[in-house]
Amino acid sequence: MESLEKIQQYVTELFAKLNFEKQPLMLYEPFQYTMSLGGKRLRPLLVMLTADMFSADLKDAENAAIAVELAHNFTLLHDDIMDASPLRRGKPTVYQKFGTDKAILSGDVMYAKAYEYLLKCDTEKIPALVKTLTSVLVQVCEGQAYDMDFEQRNDVTRREYITMISLKTAVLLAASLKTGAIIANADAQSMNALSEFGLYLGIAFQLQDDILDCWSDLNEFGKVIGSDIVDNKKTILFLSAVEKANDEDAKELITWYLEKTTDFQKKKQRVIELFEKYNVKEDVEQMIGQYTIKALEALDKITVEEERKENLRTLAKQLINRKK
Amino acid sequence: MESLEKIQQYVTELFAKLNFEKQPLMLYEPFQYTMSLGGKRLRPLLVMLTADMFSADLKDAENAAIAVELAHNFTLLHDDIMDASPLRRGKPTVYQKFGTDKAILSGDVMYAKAYEYLLKCDTEKIPALVKTLTSVLVQVCEGQAYDMDFEQRNDVTRREYITMISLKTAVLLAASLKTGAIIANADAQSMNALSEFGLYLGIAFQLQDDILDCWSDLNEFGKVIGSDIVDNKKTILFLSAVEKANDEDAKELITWYLEKTTDFQKKKQRVIELFEKYNVKEDVEQMIGQYTIKALEALDKITVEEERKENLRTLAKQLINRKK
Repeated sequence: MESLEKIQQYVTELFAKLNFEKQPLMLYEPFQYTMSLGGKRLRPLLVMLTADMFSADLKDAENAAIAVELAHNFTLLHDDIMDASPLRRGKPTVYQKFGTDKAILSGDVMYAKAYEYLLKCDTEKIPALVKTLTSVLVQVCEGQAYDMDFEQRNDVTRREYITMISLKTAVLLAASLKTGAIIANADAQSMNALSEFGLYLGIAFQLQDDILDCWSDLNEFGKVIGSDIVDNKKTILFLSAVEKANDEDAKELITWYLEKTTDFQKKKQRVIELFEKYNVKEDVEQMIGQYTIKALEALDKITVEEERKENLRTLAKQLINRKK
Repeated sequence: MESLEKIQQYVTELFAKLNFEKQPLMLYEPFQYTMSLGGKRLRPLLVMLTADMFSADLKDAENAAIAVELAHNFTLLHDDIMDASPLRRGKPTVYQKFGTDKAILSGDVMYAKAYEYLLKCDTEKIPALVKTLTSVLVQVCEGQAYDMDFEQRNDVTRREYITMISLKTAVLLAASLKTGAIIANADAQSMNALSEFGLYLGIAFQLQDDILDCWSDLNEFGKVIGSDIVDNKKTILFLSAVEKANDEDAKELITWYLEKTTDFQKKKQRVIELFEKYNVKEDVEQMIGQYTIKALEALDKITVEEERKENLRTLAKQLINRKK
């Protein structure tokens, strides 16, 4: 078994070696731009860590790891258009830099390329790998649709929100772990346990993202602070605050989230003030703690020695305590 | 072996039975709208005809036929955004009716659903089916990129144009035939011959589309007449006309195609006048004839009795003589 740091290094070097730029440049320049922006490479790391946990060679997991990262970046490319996000990883988003048409098309080809990488894996594993990736991408699209729908609605519940982020974010983490398990020929019980781990970890991860959107340093975070508030995204912070607030404050929060154009600085400041008044950050941190415990408990069901699970445990804790 | 009409009927009924509408509606309403608009269902028909040619049960080809039609419609959904096309099959395009965001997202999920249908096929055929679909979708994206690039360029050659339409249109026809052949366990020689047939037929088909864009009846064609001219699409008609025209007329044509906003009716009328002055329609009809002959010759290499190839022969002739 390799150390977490060594596998992280392996993933970083794997992606540093890739170059997708070729003709037609209209298609592959935005593609390469996206892939060269970096990011956490969390999903390929999960593929690799799982493969390694079941004693597979890291080399055998490379193509599947690249596939999940391509699939993830495809969803980001298109989400950034829909969410009109100006920044990603501290740089202009593809649609901002290259225009909407190129962002659509290079996203499309990136999705196809994800399958191309899966097709480089052992033939007998291809059906399971394709099934895992396809099923998760349907769910990610559904999650994104709910996310957009929630922007228009005023009766979103916390339960609906957790379902939405499960679809939009957590299932891809679960699928990355399962992908590594398929590569390593893991047993069905372990695969299910890994999916459960990924799902709970993914929810905790996204709730942490909601907190970071309000309380973090732009230079570290790489996205615009408070953009969820500007976009009227009814995150867990908003839903929790509306639930706890007195009538007057709840009404004020809802009114802010109905605004289309407004003084964004004032809006962000006032909304965060209300979040702080009701201590919703602490509530969400408690939720994150609970989901993290559930995630770690799921690891118990995996049929390898305890010490082989240490990398996933350490990573889970790092993710929950991250600043970006 | 079934008759062409019977298989056409089978395909029509297959798609009439499908209903993709479910929650979240934001995602699946545009999806179902697209799939219910009909169209020629040419690609699933090619899957079915090929499967039938090699004596497979039509039922066994259903999922693969649905997959290629979903993949095709996914590309249309996104192309219509990029080309700003108002009409498709005589109805508003998805991005016009539901907005760009929903058109992007429902296109994405449609693409994933194409793979979902492939995954319903026999497990041992899945790797080959996924490979065929994936490889063609990369090429279709590349074709669309060249198409967009050509709108900005003034030095496009006829050869480049044929390459572009091969990628954008013909390879998917070839892949549909190959898909049917995989389902029916056809031999490699026949698969290659079918790909060749599909490629030449697809080129002829697109050249015919270029003609129909200029000279057809809106009610039959279902798209805006002359939209290629309005969009400055350097079709084979334009490229042939510029090549044949005297300096003055060539300059006029090029000038029209540099226009961004203009009197579209006048532009269309004058451009078509120049096309007619140089008989480019007749030239292109001759090219179509040549590609059709090459397509039909490719059929000779398929290892089934001649009479089993009759449906593909008849269909090829129908497509080339179509009015929409």
